[in-house]
Amino acid sequence: MSATEDVAKDYYDYPDWNMENAVPTKVPVEVIPPCDPTADDRLYHICISAISLVVMLTLAFLARRMKLADGQKRVPGLLSPVNFLDHTQHKGLAVAVFGVLFCKLFGLVIAPNPLPFTTDQANKQYWIIVSLFYYPVLYFPLLACGTLRNPVGYVLGSLLSWAHFGVLVWQKADCPKTPEIYKYYSLLASLPQICCLAFLSFQYPLLLFKGLKRTEKTTAGEDLSSSYYNDYVKNILKKKKASKTSTSTEKPTLVERITDAVKSYIYTPEEVFRFPLKLAVSGVVSFTALYQMALVFVASVVPTLQIIRQGVNEDIAFLLAGFNVVLSEDRAEVVRIVVHYMWCVEVCYLSAITLSCSVNLVMLMRSMILHRSNLKGLYRGDIYNVYNCQRNIRPSRPALVCWMGFTSFQSAHICLGMLIQTIVFFLCLLIAVFLIIIPIFHAQNLMLFKVLGNMWPFWLLLFSVVVVQHVATRFCFIKKCTGTLDNRGSLFLLTYLLFPVNVLIGVVLGAWRLVITALFNIVHLGRMDISLLNRHVETFDPAYRCYAHYLKIEVSQSHPVMKAFCGMMLQFARQDGAEKKARDEEEGIQLVNQEKKLQHKVSISKRARGHWQLLYTLVNNPSLVGSRKHFQLQRSESFFNGTPNWAAKEGIKKEAGNTEAGKETEAVTN
Amino acid sequence: MSATEDVAKDYYDYPDWNMENAVPTKVPVEVIPPCDPTADDRLYHICISAISLVVMLTLAFLARRMKLADGQKRVPGLLSPVNFLDHTQHKGLAVAVFGVLFCKLFGLVIAPNPLPFTTDQANKQYWIIVSLFYYPVLYFPLLACGTLRNPVGYVLGSLLSWAHFGVLVWQKADCPKTPEIYKYYSLLASLPQICCLAFLSFQYPLLLFKGLKRTEKTTAGEDLSSSYYNDYVKNILKKKKASKTSTSTEKPTLVERITDAVKSYIYTPEEVFRFPLKLAVSGVVSFTALYQMALVFVASVVPTLQIIRQGVNEDIAFLLAGFNVVLSEDRAEVVRIVVHYMWCVEVCYLSAITLSCSVNLVMLMRSMILHRSNLKGLYRGDIYNVYNCQRNIRPSRPALVCWMGFTSFQSAHICLGMLIQTIVFFLCLLIAVFLIIIPIFHAQNLMLFKVLGNMWPFWLLLFSVVVVQHVATRFCFIKKCTGTLDNRGSLFLLTYLLFPVNVLIGVVLGAWRLVITALFNIVHLGRMDISLLNRHVETFDPAYRCYAHYLKIEVSQSHPVMKAFCGMMLQFARQDGAEKKARDEEEGIQLVNQEKKLQHKVSISKRARGHWQLLYTLVNNPSLVGSRKHFQLQRSESFFNGTPNWAAKEGIKKEAGNTEAGKETEAVTN
Repeated sequence: MSATEDVAKDYYDYPDWNMENAVPTKVPVEVIPPCDPTADDRLYHICISAISLVVMLTLAFLARRMKLADGQKRVPGLLSPVNFLDHTQHKGLAVAVFGVLFCKLFGLVIAPNPLPFTTDQANKQYWIIVSLFYYPVLYFPLLACGTLRNPVGYVLGSLLSWAHFGVLVWQKADCPKTPEIYKYYSLLASLPQICCLAFLSFQYPLLLFKGLKRTEKTTAGEDLSSSYYNDYVKNILKKKKASKTSTSTEKPTLVERITDAVKSYIYTPEEVFRFPLKLAVSGVVSFTALYQMALVFVASVVPTLQIIRQGVNEDIAFLLAGFNVVLSEDRAEVVRIVVHYMWCVEVCYLSAITLSCSVNLVMLMRSMILHRSNLKGLYRGDIYNVYNCQRNIRPSRPALVCWMGFTSFQSAHICLGMLIQTIVFFLCLLIAVFLIIIPIFHAQNLMLFKVLGNMWPFWLLLFSVVVVQHVATRFCFIKKCTGTLDNRGSLFLLTYLLFPVNVLIGVVLGAWRLVITALFNIVHLGRMDISLLNRHVETFDPAYRCYAHYLKIEVSQSHPVMKAFCGMMLQFARQDGAEKKARDEEEGIQLVNQEKKLQHKVSISKRARGHWQLLYTLVNNPSLVGSRKHFQLQRSESFFNGTPNWAAKEGIKKEAGNTEAGKETEAVTN
Repeated sequence: MSATEDVAKDYYDYPDWNMENAVPTKVPVEVIPPCDPTADDRLYHICISAISLVVMLTLAFLARRMKLADGQKRVPGLLSPVNFLDHTQHKGLAVAVFGVLFCKLFGLVIAPNPLPFTTDQANKQYWIIVSLFYYPVLYFPLLACGTLRNPVGYVLGSLLSWAHFGVLVWQKADCPKTPEIYKYYSLLASLPQICCLAFLSFQYPLLLFKGLKRTEKTTAGEDLSSSYYNDYVKNILKKKKASKTSTSTEKPTLVERITDAVKSYIYTPEEVFRFPLKLAVSGVVSFTALYQMALVFVASVVPTLQIIRQGVNEDIAFLLAGFNVVLSEDRAEVVRIVVHYMWCVEVCYLSAITLSCSVNLVMLMRSMILHRSNLKGLYRGDIYNVYNCQRNIRPSRPALVCWMGFTSFQSAHICLGMLIQTIVFFLCLLIAVFLIIIPIFHAQNLMLFKVLGNMWPFWLLLFSVVVVQHVATRFCFIKKCTGTLDNRGSLFLLTYLLFPVNVLIGVVLGAWRLVITALFNIVHLGRMDISLLNRHVETFDPAYRCYAHYLKIEVSQSHPVMKAFCGMMLQFARQDGAEKKARDEEEGIQLVNQEKKLQHKVSISKRARGHWQLLYTLVNNPSLVGSRKHFQLQRSESFFNGTPNWAAKEGIKKEAGNTEAGKETEAVTN
């Protein structure tokens, strides 16, 4: 650490604070000297920046050479940090780099020096802003090495990730204890970062090894030729019989319903579904956020509480007496009670953190399940069920901005949610412990119970009135056999007479509503995939609005059925045409040109099949329309806007005959 | 007032409290002596109870005589406090009596003596429980007089309501000032009660007058023969062309959308729709609750604040100096500042109450609009839109219990909602005034602005990043003509680089979400007709669940189309059969028997028409099935459960030919 004097100042402040606010203690506080690791942070960053620059230049040179050698217009762009919309490859690289970046960002808020190059505290916030851009750039080569899909890139990536990993581990081994917050905080906080870098150090050599083994296969169109999309389509076409049996049965029993509810919170992977990369990144970053928040909460409060608890001595009795609080005549007894109460507070705090962590973990799992069902629903055109209204699934400006920020927003919401949850759970647990559990154990200070006990006639009244209403309804007012109303006169009379008591029941119900609503919203605060508002105004919830927009982009750009078709058509093209030309098609949208070039070679039947597939693809994926050669704005827009996404829903066979696309195909074939 | 000594004690406590907590004052406090009205409460209650008893006995005797004279099995039950399910008559009586009852109930919580017969303070809560049943019984004769639809009943009702009204006005004129809470509180709190009683005193003579004028017309079947139901059906059948034009137009402009939003909060009565009685009662009781809550809030705090403000003198400077607060060197200046701040607090408090009243009024209006659209939706079978799932619209035990409590729950929720809203708005206004407005006016203590000002680089960063993302998306990443994505490499790069800044934006977004959600739920806390939870779990909200159940009962029992048909069939019966027998049919469900008796007289074509109408009615109103003579449980249940309520949706013409009912009718006709 270079900021020696600041850290030292922080450190010596600590016992001072202790002296002022709590009781004078004689606990031997462990002295942690500020530690300077052998691998100095400033030197390390200067070196690694230089190395990264060299790596990037090498990669750029390599990319240019590849372009020239292949004579192609499209080589995987050096500046695209792994294809985010790709379902099938290199997910791990992006996930790991985002994880590292998030850990660094989280450290920024707490670290005394945001940038290793300077210790200027006066302009700290400007340095923080600079560092918000410095760290993404610093870690970018780790991603860029993977984008070229070239052995040289993998070798450079391996070296770079080893360097990052090695230095970090070395630093932490040199200085496991730091004076910040808690002695091991710094070490524990860097664990996810170490994991991610370790993953990268392992993944790059693996990619290199795989790449060397099958050099022929790793073409640019690897995504489209992946078997995943074909498997997805096959699965859609075959799965019909299993689900029917369960829906036709009678109402589920209570046990079944509980089992179903529990199951809906446990994520089980499905064979033929993979998450989009962006969602996978969000999941991992959210998990990291969870870990970091929990660590900060525990590290910043629990050691302090423990030190204070150990330092309680008999002076506390005088201190309390100053506030007119006399817990006991015996001073040793007072110390015992105070220590016990402080221990209770500590337990409450830790329980609250544990609770909020588990809640967020469960919510993360539930989110994954909902993401999956939403994506599958939208793939088959089930827009109404997902959005509760009809929407246009097309990229738009706000949608794309939301898509760009989704991962970040998700992690920020998790952090905020955990903060609020921990506070609320802690207060609730404190109330529960000090007003309910401790009074019961010690059989004194039973204030709450006394108040409730004094009100027993009211509770009895409310309870008996509810029971009377239910019983009367069951036996007098509803004819059992028909379900129609009976004895209407008595029903009205009872309604009138019980009106005042029902108002009191209504107050209890209202309080219950308040509790339920607040608790639900606090528990679900970290989830962006559900709206916290009523169904009619759910898009006023900014987080849900962002998620809805995000889904739009994700679905319009990575429809597996579309990709399966693009892959199939590329296969035909490869079989028929020149093997070399087929490598052009990275994204399947140059399909039409390809089709045109090949048309003199293929037979009439193949042409017809090609047209049919093209039209079908276009009808279901209006976003591809713009890439057609003979694209006419007015006509296409009016045509494709009007066509609903029904076809994907019904499976992809036999439907073409009824559609506009089918008619056009017939015309072409004839 | 009989509880002289208690009231006196309360009164003399007041300046004591003032002396202890605030500054010693020299303000001449107005002395209000405890007041005993000439019409003593205890004597009045004894007399009016006796009179009510006599009235009830008279009415019972009258009901029995009417039954014997008419030789009927069904006379309007004395014990049914006006038919709650009736759309067309005597709405005012029930509304007014419920209003009186609610005011009494509200007074119970505050009054020193819940029952006028006793001043026993030790067992006060038992007396409150007794009074919860005493007052409904006391005011019951006011309702019962209207149920017989007999001139004698109206005369008794007039006398009784005059007695209640007269004594109340006399008491209030005798003792306008009372020492409770605020000198005029008691007078102001009884205003709604006086209004309701005045309405009753006016309504009963009016009913008597109307009843004498058209003795022939006031049959028991008045509800069914009302033109309301026929008008409703006519309206359904004709209204088609107006709504089409607006939906086919392009996206509405911003101004139009704002206008629509504002309009959707302003209730405008519709010609051919009347609220069910229960909803009308709920509306009036809710409004009364609003008034009473606002009155309590104002009366309990504002006078005290004013007294304290007037009593501030130069001693306050010493008091504040004791807490190390020195507002100014000049003591007169300190007094001026303190008085000014207290005036600000008072203004905030009154504004908060005004705001919460207006919010609740707007919400009441919005509720009315939503009730209407929900009822109309369910009448035409549009269950999915109202409940967001398919439900069985049949009376069930929980549904009926919810129906019984609906009015009470609604008013309790309004009270609770106002309490929470006032507290939250008051705190928000305090923060706004003392952290924003006063610092700006005095140009000192600009803490909040200083903090925000110091953070300006951050705000600028966040703002500029958002702008950059929007601009880049607009001009680089979305192809304008087609709406497809472009420059994917740069898009991914930007997404990666802006990840850390987007996390900060996410925190701001999360805070905004928290504020929006909390504010929405607090504002809508008093409304039962919307769920405060997410759309997937909305029935976990107890208030909404209750409302949903309530709607079920209301719709299954008072479908206007069904009632129109019942009315039409009764008309036919009257035209054909004996005029006297037609008075039997109060609820239209004895229709079948009636039909059977008449079958020998009417021609074949009329029989066919009768059957058709009967079947049509039954298909759309399964709740009537149980009343059929040859009712067979198994067959009917399976048949009618399976038939959706589609027909009402389509209008009631021409559809019968395609349905089961139509087939059966054909069989009958042939």
